[in-house]
Amino acid sequence: MEKFQVTILGCGSAKPTLRHAPSAQLVNFRDKLFLIDCGEGTQMQLMRAHCRFNRLRHIFISHLHGDHCYGLPGLLSTMGLTGLDGEVVVHLPEEGVQLFKPLLDYSANGLRVEFAPYSYGNHIIYEDKSLTVNTVPLKHRLPCVGFVFREKPRLRHLNNEMARFHEVPVRERQAIKEGADYVKPDGTVIRNEILTTPAEPSRTYAYISDTLPLKAVISEVTGADLLYHEATFLNNLAPRAKQTCHTTAADAGRIAREAGVKQLIIGHFSSRYLNESPLLEEAKAEFPNTLLAREGLTVDV
Amino acid sequence: MEKFQVTILGCGSAKPTLRHAPSAQLVNFRDKLFLIDCGEGTQMQLMRAHCRFNRLRHIFISHLHGDHCYGLPGLLSTMGLTGLDGEVVVHLPEEGVQLFKPLLDYSANGLRVEFAPYSYGNHIIYEDKSLTVNTVPLKHRLPCVGFVFREKPRLRHLNNEMARFHEVPVRERQAIKEGADYVKPDGTVIRNEILTTPAEPSRTYAYISDTLPLKAVISEVTGADLLYHEATFLNNLAPRAKQTCHTTAADAGRIAREAGVKQLIIGHFSSRYLNESPLLEEAKAEFPNTLLAREGLTVDV
Repeated sequence: MEKFQVTILGCGSAKPTLRHAPSAQLVNFRDKLFLIDCGEGTQMQLMRAHCRFNRLRHIFISHLHGDHCYGLPGLLSTMGLTGLDGEVVVHLPEEGVQLFKPLLDYSANGLRVEFAPYSYGNHIIYEDKSLTVNTVPLKHRLPCVGFVFREKPRLRHLNNEMARFHEVPVRERQAIKEGADYVKPDGTVIRNEILTTPAEPSRTYAYISDTLPLKAVISEVTGADLLYHEATFLNNLAPRAKQTCHTTAADAGRIAREAGVKQLIIGHFSSRYLNESPLLEEAKAEFPNTLLAREGLTVDV
Repeated sequence: MEKFQVTILGCGSAKPTLRHAPSAQLVNFRDKLFLIDCGEGTQMQLMRAHCRFNRLRHIFISHLHGDHCYGLPGLLSTMGLTGLDGEVVVHLPEEGVQLFKPLLDYSANGLRVEFAPYSYGNHIIYEDKSLTVNTVPLKHRLPCVGFVFREKPRLRHLNNEMARFHEVPVRERQAIKEGADYVKPDGTVIRNEILTTPAEPSRTYAYISDTLPLKAVISEVTGADLLYHEATFLNNLAPRAKQTCHTTAADAGRIAREAGVKQLIIGHFSSRYLNESPLLEEAKAEFPNTLLAREGLTVDV
């Protein structure tokens, strides 16, 4: 199976602790590397994860609270310093450009950074031949979005024996893997199902952080293979969660269940929890296939 | 002896490593806390040093390379988040205001930050009843200064026995400790030397980072009790040191010797050194009383 993995680099929340780094995740999709959020110290976390971060080409920032973006200047400067061969694109809210550009213009050593501001809403902000990334509008104290990484439909598998038997030329094979029938020189149509076996289902990873629990999120992440959802508080602090626009572990579990995802990771833990097991138990009561995020954890999507 | 200590929070250089944090130091002068430089992750280093950083009131930034200032937004935001009772003053080069203020205005939670830009040169930028801090102009790729923390002349010790014998009233004692003679009601003058013993000498700490080795620095730090001097490279990389406007360990030792300081700490190590002992040996050959900086090291001035 082609690689599609998520590595947690930080799963703490606004108030820093020595137990957790602030929000950041590395997505490895078929050896292309994407960074989601970039709290202070993310470049160190990337080093700890043995990531050669000069391979990063796209960085997605969910919102402009410091625990999700204050690591940008350091990471980008270091990429400049170590000679990035190419350009890095930072997808972020519009206001972020004027916050970070002056800092980088001042001291980042000739790094080619393209700021790609997105507007709040549901948009495809990245696309290549095998992947799309779209934003999901969330409800937080600042404009904030989630990111859904969707693998495009994958190619069907050519049955080589049948292809030889029907004398399919090499130039036709790509179209057939994409689902086309094969028309022989004499006009005979060989149906695709005869020449191929089905593709593996395409995979989806959804990152939802810093939000009130939202019904609208459920439809956006329905059927995802992996959902990361923030779970800042236990349910006994639901009023505090509401006041600060965050989600409880129970709510995160409920969303995972209602969206019918395959697996849930909870994170963005409040600094008050010196032991996150109760958060895990609470989410599991709603959705058993839940994992606790921790720095360095890598999960296959 | 009243406290005057320096704690190294970071002694790496521009390219981050997992061995060293970027530049930052905590100065504790009679339980007043001062921060010098604030590389990325300084707030975590302060936590590791068990520093309640809400007690910080003055932050001194030597120059605007990221490894000396990218930790500012995170530290100040956290201070805002945890409810700083008062105001924090950030002393920094003029250009720093427009680089950092927008970021803090956007997301720091009501923290009262005063930016106190200093101009390049030799100026007293902080003064209270017992301490001054002055800038020392350095030569780096950006405008950069060192900081000299000078304890003001301390009070002479009153000889209580002699004070009683000469019937010195309580209200006169402060002036006598400051060096005044005592004039009795009958006009007799009791010379200060009879009533007091000498004060302890006042202490000086000098922080010199990111610079070519400078003759001008020697006179600025003459006789300092403790000198921190950058020593990014070994002498065999002297051309590289010159090209990047840095100092070698040998040069740092020579400056310490020529300035007649009591103790030297070297730091700001290039990421290429996985073992700093050769840097220490090289500096010690010039100035034996040299220490290697390391994160968490606390030294009395």
